Amino acid sequence: MSVHLAKGTRDFLPADMLARRQVVDVVRDVFERFGFEPLDTPVFERIETLTGKYGEEGEKLIFKILRRGKGGETGACDQALRYDLTVPLARVLAMNAQLRMPFKRYQIAKVWRADRPQKGRFREFFQCDVDVAGTTSPLADAECLAVLYTALSELGFAEFTIRLNDRRILTDLAAAAGAEDSKSETSFLIALDKLDKVGRAGVDKELIGRGFEADAIEKAWKVLAPQENDDATLDYLASQLGERGQEGVSFLRQVRDAALALGVDSARLTVDPTLARGLDYYTGPVFEAVVQEPNVGSIAGGGRYDGLVGVFSKRDIPAVGVSLGLERIITVMKELGMLPEPAPVAEALVTVFAAEQTPASLKTASALRAAGVRTELYSGDGRFKNQFKHANARGYRWLVVVGPDEAEQGVVMLKDLASGTQEKLTATDAAAAIVSAR
Amino acid sequence: MSVHLAKGTRDFLPADMLARRQVVDVVRDVFERFGFEPLDTPVFERIETLTGKYGEEGEKLIFKILRRGKGGETGACDQALRYDLTVPLARVLAMNAQLRMPFKRYQIAKVWRADRPQKGRFREFFQCDVDVAGTTSPLADAECLAVLYTALSELGFAEFTIRLNDRRILTDLAAAAGAEDSKSETSFLIALDKLDKVGRAGVDKELIGRGFEADAIEKAWKVLAPQENDDATLDYLASQLGERGQEGVSFLRQVRDAALALGVDSARLTVDPTLARGLDYYTGPVFEAVVQEPNVGSIAGGGRYDGLVGVFSKRDIPAVGVSLGLERIITVMKELGMLPEPAPVAEALVTVFAAEQTPASLKTASALRAAGVRTELYSGDGRFKNQFKHANARGYRWLVVVGPDEAEQGVVMLKDLASGTQEKLTATDAAAAIVSAR
Repeated sequence: MSVHLAKGTRDFLPADMLARRQVVDVVRDVFERFGFEPLDTPVFERIETLTGKYGEEGEKLIFKILRRGKGGETGACDQALRYDLTVPLARVLAMNAQLRMPFKRYQIAKVWRADRPQKGRFREFFQCDVDVAGTTSPLADAECLAVLYTALSELGFAEFTIRLNDRRILTDLAAAAGAEDSKSETSFLIALDKLDKVGRAGVDKELIGRGFEADAIEKAWKVLAPQENDDATLDYLASQLGERGQEGVSFLRQVRDAALALGVDSARLTVDPTLARGLDYYTGPVFEAVVQEPNVGSIAGGGRYDGLVGVFSKRDIPAVGVSLGLERIITVMKELGMLPEPAPVAEALVTVFAAEQTPASLKTASALRAAGVRTELYSGDGRFKNQFKHANARGYRWLVVVGPDEAEQGVVMLKDLASGTQEKLTATDAAAAIVSAR
Repeated sequence: MSVHLAKGTRDFLPADMLARRQVVDVVRDVFERFGFEPLDTPVFERIETLTGKYGEEGEKLIFKILRRGKGGETGACDQALRYDLTVPLARVLAMNAQLRMPFKRYQIAKVWRADRPQKGRFREFFQCDVDVAGTTSPLADAECLAVLYTALSELGFAEFTIRLNDRRILTDLAAAAGAEDSKSETSFLIALDKLDKVGRAGVDKELIGRGFEADAIEKAWKVLAPQENDDATLDYLASQLGERGQEGVSFLRQVRDAALALGVDSARLTVDPTLARGLDYYTGPVFEAVVQEPNVGSIAGGGRYDGLVGVFSKRDIPAVGVSLGLERIITVMKELGMLPEPAPVAEALVTVFAAEQTPASLKTASALRAAGVRTELYSGDGRFKNQFKHANARGYRWLVVVGPDEAEQGVVMLKDLASGTQEKLTATDAAAAIVSAR
């Protein structure tokens, strides 16, 4: 008999859960400190809510749910698992006119993509998203950069870079390279997106293959010529681009200034006109966070999407957001030794011996719990030696022994497994000792 | 253009989320105080993991996921959304021989059933499960009763009853009524399960319709004759039932005694031989918690299932657990006014006026957040009056005004919207004032 997980999925056993919880708790705390409120959406949506949002390649990766009853026999699907948290948010915004704007929400939840599973890539994974909806102010974009910066900093990341660009700059850049419509703009961006991996020569080759002309490509590279700092980059871009690109430059300048005033370290933020994030729905700033080592790609990304809610509603609602990739963040933190060994849930094991002492053990467990001590009552059939081993293996600090003598005297023997010391106490005093030693 | 949720699903907007969080936090805290550790499993499983576990009716309610690529065109399904948290746990136990027993885990997560949606019944809903695996000790069953009792008590439930029975008692009872195999036993239990709804005459009618004979049914009712208290009920059952039933009675006695020693109030616990929980996989104690008003059916239920892991593995692992139905618990708490209005996430709104003062607003928000104050920076385009309204509408206690005067003086005006008082302070002092007034 063999039993398996569904392909590309994982169980999180308690040790994994407790390690991940340390990360999620930091992220959630930062999100809430920035005033974002929690939102939850169903794991599946009507299929038409998701189609047409993720491009041809993305759409293939959507998990579809068979229709119940009629139609199901022939493979008809009416629902699908969410692919990200942004499209469901846009649906929520479209359906809930009563929401007060600006609306700041976070969602830390699973999404599903039927990608080919490989090392570090799963079909079920967590995203941690914050979005500000209902405002076109660059302060909202800056808040997204600041919340991202703060979350990564508080997780302990020191060497990371938030790259910042604007879709309008990219559009003008693509136009400089000869892109005449949104399809060839997308084609240009797909090629440019590979710059980190294949270098300039590789991008050139791909652009030629995609029908761009060499001298036009050269023009685009001229626009991308590196400058000595962000201010110079923005000035230079403004001098090279058309009206739309200049609008992007001017907006980016405000976003960057506000982000710095919000405490983002200028060493961690860089304007990078080569940053080409793929999603079609971005309309303004786009950004991503990367670490140098280990090389896992970006650990977070986001941008402004002022047109997405309008796909669902007459009421168009501008929005900007950022998504932290929990799996990659955890991968990096593990590799860099940034994830401390989590403490076990319980602090104490109460022993159980013969039937005569069992009521005393139960009353002891009850007293410890009533005092807030996280307590396992031993419910296996091991003898004392095994119970001692059990407490050690689980990493509990305290063993609370209720043997014949203790039961008779109405006390417990409190053993500190860290120091090896022990003391006879009432259950109430043992609880107080455990709490005060935390 | 119209946009909808998938049938039977809900969004949880921030106010819902914050209200639900109050409940989940209490439940999780109790689970951990009893030493249960968190576990998470994928939302979907291989289809063969789920089939054959929930009976014919249950199986129809499983959401199936279309195969990607080959087979998908013709409606082939290889995966399905989980239907409960118990079967995935059994799979985890079967696949992870390294887990140290007894293994105590909790999982608070969504499950999906394609039931017909109706008032209070959804296709996506939360369950809160604790299970103890790897022991046949009645202490494990008693721990499940105690954790259930403690969770309901700490949520504020006063009038609830935990009904307790044993599958072995039910089996002998069904035999008394003439059930000769497991199929007719199931048939008997389905009829008995309706006692609360249709009364004794209704159950009789259904049993006759299911082919049971009147005088045999009468024998079963004799076994169920009410006794004056739980001890009398257990004694009487032992006198009426065969060896298997007596085994159940003796085990229940130990479970009940242990639960009371663990602090369960005897007024909240009752032995009820008419309790017939449907799931096939129960082998020992079964139990459920009910409230009198409002009548929503059981708000929690569980039991011992010593054979389920063996379906997946050569290594059979006994287990017992309880599942709290979060939706029904929340429904009852709302109707009884037990759910306090949740506080908003943020405590303070920092105002933003003209461009000249914006940097001061940003620095103020940053200082407040650095001091741990949950802060919204106003990013809309409203004037002061609107910003004031925004803070009030969101229920924030504090408005932090950074106007021209304040910006020039390097201070803020901290307005307490609860008392109407205000004070000029540095941002750091304002943060300290907010923190100390919590």
